[in-house]
Amino acid sequence: MSGLPPTDRTPDVPGSPAPGASQEEIRRQNLGAVLRHVHVHGPTSRAELTTRLGLNRSTIRALAADLAAAGLVTEGAPTTARRAGRPSLVVSPRSTRVYARAMTIEPDRLRAARVGLGGRILDLREIEYPRGTSPCDAVRPLAWLVRDMDRSAGPDAVCVGAAVAVTDTTQGRDGRIRIGGPDEALRAAFDAEFPGGPAVVAGDMADIAALAEQVRGVAAGVNDLVYLHGGPGVSAGIIIGGRLVRGHGGHSGKVGHMVVNPHGLPCRCGSHGCWETEIGEAALLRHAGRDQESPDAVYEVLRAAADGEPQARAAVDQVADWLGFGVANLVNVVNPDTVVFGGSLREVYLAGAETVHRRLAELALPASREHVQLRPAALGRTAALVGAAELAFAHLLADPLNNACPA
Amino acid sequence: MSGLPPTDRTPDVPGSPAPGASQEEIRRQNLGAVLRHVHVHGPTSRAELTTRLGLNRSTIRALAADLAAAGLVTEGAPTTARRAGRPSLVVSPRSTRVYARAMTIEPDRLRAARVGLGGRILDLREIEYPRGTSPCDAVRPLAWLVRDMDRSAGPDAVCVGAAVAVTDTTQGRDGRIRIGGPDEALRAAFDAEFPGGPAVVAGDMADIAALAEQVRGVAAGVNDLVYLHGGPGVSAGIIIGGRLVRGHGGHSGKVGHMVVNPHGLPCRCGSHGCWETEIGEAALLRHAGRDQESPDAVYEVLRAAADGEPQARAAVDQVADWLGFGVANLVNVVNPDTVVFGGSLREVYLAGAETVHRRLAELALPASREHVQLRPAALGRTAALVGAAELAFAHLLADPLNNACPA
Repeated sequence: MSGLPPTDRTPDVPGSPAPGASQEEIRRQNLGAVLRHVHVHGPTSRAELTTRLGLNRSTIRALAADLAAAGLVTEGAPTTARRAGRPSLVVSPRSTRVYARAMTIEPDRLRAARVGLGGRILDLREIEYPRGTSPCDAVRPLAWLVRDMDRSAGPDAVCVGAAVAVTDTTQGRDGRIRIGGPDEALRAAFDAEFPGGPAVVAGDMADIAALAEQVRGVAAGVNDLVYLHGGPGVSAGIIIGGRLVRGHGGHSGKVGHMVVNPHGLPCRCGSHGCWETEIGEAALLRHAGRDQESPDAVYEVLRAAADGEPQARAAVDQVADWLGFGVANLVNVVNPDTVVFGGSLREVYLAGAETVHRRLAELALPASREHVQLRPAALGRTAALVGAAELAFAHLLADPLNNACPA
Repeated sequence: MSGLPPTDRTPDVPGSPAPGASQEEIRRQNLGAVLRHVHVHGPTSRAELTTRLGLNRSTIRALAADLAAAGLVTEGAPTTARRAGRPSLVVSPRSTRVYARAMTIEPDRLRAARVGLGGRILDLREIEYPRGTSPCDAVRPLAWLVRDMDRSAGPDAVCVGAAVAVTDTTQGRDGRIRIGGPDEALRAAFDAEFPGGPAVVAGDMADIAALAEQVRGVAAGVNDLVYLHGGPGVSAGIIIGGRLVRGHGGHSGKVGHMVVNPHGLPCRCGSHGCWETEIGEAALLRHAGRDQESPDAVYEVLRAAADGEPQARAAVDQVADWLGFGVANLVNVVNPDTVVFGGSLREVYLAGAETVHRRLAELALPASREHVQLRPAALGRTAALVGAAELAFAHLLADPLNNACPA
């Protein structure tokens, strides 16, 4: 007897038969596997690729040659020879040639980066952006940043993809928040700004930051992960079994609107007692007796709590208490291996970790709780850009030769 | 601009490179795809398989011949010729020859079935089983039922897999429930009873029922699904993006222990205000003023509510209210396309649908709520057996020729 079959090869659900695999499809998969390996793990010898990917030496040699001819990798002698005999050539991503446009539309600023294959940030620009402005109005200034960066790229640089991380929560004129509004309009606006360029893929900010932490951050290699992002609102990116849990309309992870307190305060969404009303930035400021809502005010409260100011300390404890409460619910529902705290929740977690752990111990089931790790996010403010680049590279990694521009 | 790439081919997470694909692997995938198609959809002409699987005619002919030689399918002329010309041969699963052993360890009974390839229940036995007995003690009587069924199978029948659906929640002597306890012991007990036979795969009851409803029930073909099961406890099987959300230890879906009422009653798990304390069978009986806790008592309350007895009606309304509350939270967290109510929650949902929908409308975010369908389970008490059979067939469907016994 064993658990449910965990392999990626066995579809859990026989309802949707996998389409047949062809020769071309195998080659595509193998090219993608090699390129993805050097993209995630950096320069890798052919010998190690052979071992890691379970392909024979001549196949790896042919695949690497194809990727090199497409201008995606270089092959060269290792910098240090580790054993006798002819050294195995090292395959490296062409990080300065092949890049993605990564963009974020954040509550108070816009950011754009050129991110090279391999995850290296080659260039980064940002501008302030008034809170509450529609994401569509961000497209023109973002495009301006991107074109400015493109101009300073080398003459052989090739853009292979573009993605934007956007909070899919917008506040309407009535003050109520709406989710999932601007997708179509945003697509049209980007298409108009970048005619002929790689299409801009949009992803939810928390999903994208979760991806970033899972590929290059504190949860590298973790398969079952909840990434919690705190800002004006609270949302999550959930990765289970190595795959993003997106949901039917891509709206999963709206954990800020999980009702945790049936007798709680009204929420921006029109409901009452949502988790956001207990752990959002506004809640921390309210408990701390601060009026003004801004990231600076939040960090000021956290600093004051660290300095021992009683009201600030009590505010952090109260928010940490509700933070542990909701994390326990998520642990019971999705059984993650790791919970990562990002945005301002990173600092709240660090300041109130003991309280969070105590609440978790009280409320989460032992089998799920005993193995869960709580971690502050590692990538900080670059998470969304790094994750957006991963999203932008996805097409190239899935089918390298049909999405590359040979040198 | 488009959403996150939804295809199964593009790994969402570049962190885990797919192993390289070989010739053998393609053939295995294609054989699996053909067999899975006739297993799920029933007898299918070669012409339709060609279209549905995107493979050419000669490939389908060769694959079908291999599957027929392995004794897994038959090929024959269609019963009704639909157009002129030579009719395309029809490929059918050998349902009476190739079967799985499907078993369930339910709170008050044990059931075992022989389920033929294609999902046909060929034989079914059940016996009562005292509540609260350890799952390991169920293995011997289950094995007895299975051997009795095996003896009445035809001489050419071949068992290709075995699985058991088990509630991974057990009640200790202190009255507290534990989750995820008996796996190792259960495995050893099954191995001892079936030496040499196909290993018995264990799965969580709610996960398995979710699979069944998704393959052959009310959610056939739905990719994003929450299946809620009500019994003495409440748990869920969650399928998102066509894959079971299992979690790190396979303990996801313990939604009965999501705290919905911080000031609520003590729960069997040691916490307070868990969803189970508001929508479990005990809650319904408590509100209805009934002492005795049994499935019969639950259905008696539901009947009384339908007949208009005020206290029973009020009890159903109160449970339905909390049912809608928790469903709203799950809709916000995982954004399913469909929520299926099974076990005694099926009847509670049917009796209180209006209340459930009202609560959902109040508490769930419009983007996630507007598209969600609420549905009573279709397969009833056979869901767990049908789902266990799917689990048992998984190995055969992943690699037909290495898991079949040629005739």
